[in-house]
Amino acid sequence: SDSYSLLILPGDGIGPEVMAEVVKVIDWFGANRGMSFDISEGLVGGASYDAHGTPLTDETMVKAQVVDAVLLGAVGGPKYDLLDFSVKPERGLLRLRKEMDLYANLRPAQCFDALADFSSLKREVVAGLDILIVRELTSGVYFGEPRGIHSDDNNPDNEGGRVGINTQRYTSGEIRRVARSAFELARRRNNKVCSMEKANVMESGILWREEVQWVHDNEYPDVDLTHMYADNGAMQLVRNPRQFDVIVTDNLFGDLLSDAAAMLTGSLGMLPSASLGAPMANGRPKAMYEPVHGSAPDIAGQGKANPIACILSFAMALRYSFDQGQAASDLERAVEKVLADGVRTADLMGPEGGTPVSTAEMGDRIVAAL
Amino acid sequence: SDSYSLLILPGDGIGPEVMAEVVKVIDWFGANRGMSFDISEGLVGGASYDAHGTPLTDETMVKAQVVDAVLLGAVGGPKYDLLDFSVKPERGLLRLRKEMDLYANLRPAQCFDALADFSSLKREVVAGLDILIVRELTSGVYFGEPRGIHSDDNNPDNEGGRVGINTQRYTSGEIRRVARSAFELARRRNNKVCSMEKANVMESGILWREEVQWVHDNEYPDVDLTHMYADNGAMQLVRNPRQFDVIVTDNLFGDLLSDAAAMLTGSLGMLPSASLGAPMANGRPKAMYEPVHGSAPDIAGQGKANPIACILSFAMALRYSFDQGQAASDLERAVEKVLADGVRTADLMGPEGGTPVSTAEMGDRIVAAL
Ligand SMILES: CC(C)[C@H](C(=O)O)[C@@H](O)C(=O)O
Ligand SMILES: CC(C)[C@H](C(=O)O)[C@@H](O)C(=O)O
Repeated sequence: SDSYSLLILPGDGIGPEVMAEVVKVIDWFGANRGMSFDISEGLVGGASYDAHGTPLTDETMVKAQVVDAVLLGAVGGPKYDLLDFSVKPERGLLRLRKEMDLYANLRPAQCFDALADFSSLKREVVAGLDILIVRELTSGVYFGEPRGIHSDDNNPDNEGGRVGINTQRYTSGEIRRVARSAFELARRRNNKVCSMEKANVMESGILWREEVQWVHDNEYPDVDLTHMYADNGAMQLVRNPRQFDVIVTDNLFGDLLSDAAAMLTGSLGMLPSASLGAPMANGRPKAMYEPVHGSAPDIAGQGKANPIACILSFAMALRYSFDQGQAASDLERAVEKVLADGVRTADLMGPEGGTPVSTAEMGDRIVAAL
Repeated sequence: SDSYSLLILPGDGIGPEVMAEVVKVIDWFGANRGMSFDISEGLVGGASYDAHGTPLTDETMVKAQVVDAVLLGAVGGPKYDLLDFSVKPERGLLRLRKEMDLYANLRPAQCFDALADFSSLKREVVAGLDILIVRELTSGVYFGEPRGIHSDDNNPDNEGGRVGINTQRYTSGEIRRVARSAFELARRRNNKVCSMEKANVMESGILWREEVQWVHDNEYPDVDLTHMYADNGAMQLVRNPRQFDVIVTDNLFGDLLSDAAAMLTGSLGMLPSASLGAPMANGRPKAMYEPVHGSAPDIAGQGKANPIACILSFAMALRYSFDQGQAASDLERAVEKVLADGVRTADLMGPEGGTPVSTAEMGDRIVAAL
């Protein structure tokens, strides 16, 4: 059926503002495309901490497990900097990823033609850039045990007397499943996957390389697979990002590399992401969608935020959760049209000018273009 | 006295070619500046493996411990890709770093005016860029135990049946000593340090942040200290690298961030590095100097390599090991003069042309400029 349940978690900072524009878009699809949405709202991050003393309540966690898709705004802010690690806004986000088992984080880094001049890179290096980073999201050093800060008092060589530990741990199964996601996605794009790790230094990187190769050789021999050390990957992304199609990498490398890739495009306020897990009973994958940008507390509440990344995250939901590829493309085209018409939130306003609009006006224009 | 002992380890690929040019420079300083150098040579990396079945012999290791400075070319190459982890070329390099306890890796990322157009970034973003990354080099996930690949056969959920583990481990003492290096260096530059970690996700990152702050508050309150998450750091390096002066970060983040920073400059073939440890009995620090670029096996043996990074690494040796700041500046100025004269190895040849020279000719020109 064309009926979808959604849990909306606006979160902190500009999260609520940009999510309000997504709701307009959802309503439009409900009214005009015969889809019906069952929407509930909840709190996450600092907003949840303020209300409940925890960045994610068990009720919200349970709810997230049963909906077709979670839409998240952003979490965090300086207000919460001094909170204990265990209740920081980020823990709410990490708990959702882990307990929903959202192992494949899809981060497209796309350079929008109208915005190529916003990049700090030369236009000829980034124009037309369209790469997809597939980041493992539920394992590695983010979740490995043992972890913590301990006293090391009986070590006379350790001035300060403490030791901090985290564990990078990957099973072959964890690597294989995210590799499959990357190969599947590559088949629908340019059929190229580059896997990144530090196999020259880390045994977990050797396992990563071997298992990705295994999945390739046994299941996706038609896809062009290469391997690259992650430090060279960081270099190559700066030097010539268009050499890549799909990049698959672990949780921590993916965190750095996808942020660098996003910044290359000059379109940070435009970039969506999807975090996908295993199929549920209804065949739809567990899924959460969120913009790549953060909560931007410095501009929150001023109508200055760009809602496009969050709106394009909903387009990814249409495509990956609801199998509504046509609707997703229509929404993406509406965004392109509005940009081509010169409509600009503050972050998109360049020397060639344009029509300045607020967060809400941008949302209205996109709905109008639909 | 002005007598210095050097161990030269040319290594693999273009290592021997570029090091031959450094030897010319050393000879010049010996003949013209009243310095005397006691030089020995050794093997490292694949070259050592080919000769001795190990990427670093115990004899060479012992020698490295007693000289005033080690000069290293580069290690690695596809020929050694299938070797066992324990004898790969990189292990020779990592053993030197670890056993000499070279905890502070100084990686300047400098954009040379004559080469600013080689950057993939816009000239106005990188012109005049001069930042220094201080990377911790003897600890963290590179060396933490436990590590390895194990079988995980009794875990039915783990398709593939293996698990790969590495450990990120830092003591407060390890963090404090590299923080001190960064603050000392900042005082001689623009007095600003930015420390990068993932304290929002990793406890070892929390310890890192706290200890850097402690060193600042107790010993370097005059230096301007900020903290940044490493993913944001990767973004900010792309967006506006000139916001930084000194960056201090851990071994793994430093590996990625310093490579990205090096590539920003467009001057990869120009960038030197120093790895420094504690003072020896003669007051000089344990030290190793090497270019940032790798062994470039694709152009090895063809006279195409740019020797400048390796020559500028020797300039760092003059400054940091031998306290010959004037000689170091003279050498740096000689390099600048040769570049300003339009002398170019293949990697430096741009649309505006110039005088094409081989590796050896570049070395000769620099010596002539001295
Ligand atoms: C907010 C933070 C915990 C998170 C991460 O490190 O994964 C963020 O940087 C991201 O990339 O989604
Ligand atoms: C060759 C490799 C072991 C090394 C590292 O990872 O440290 C290199 O990338 C570097 O940065 O010096």
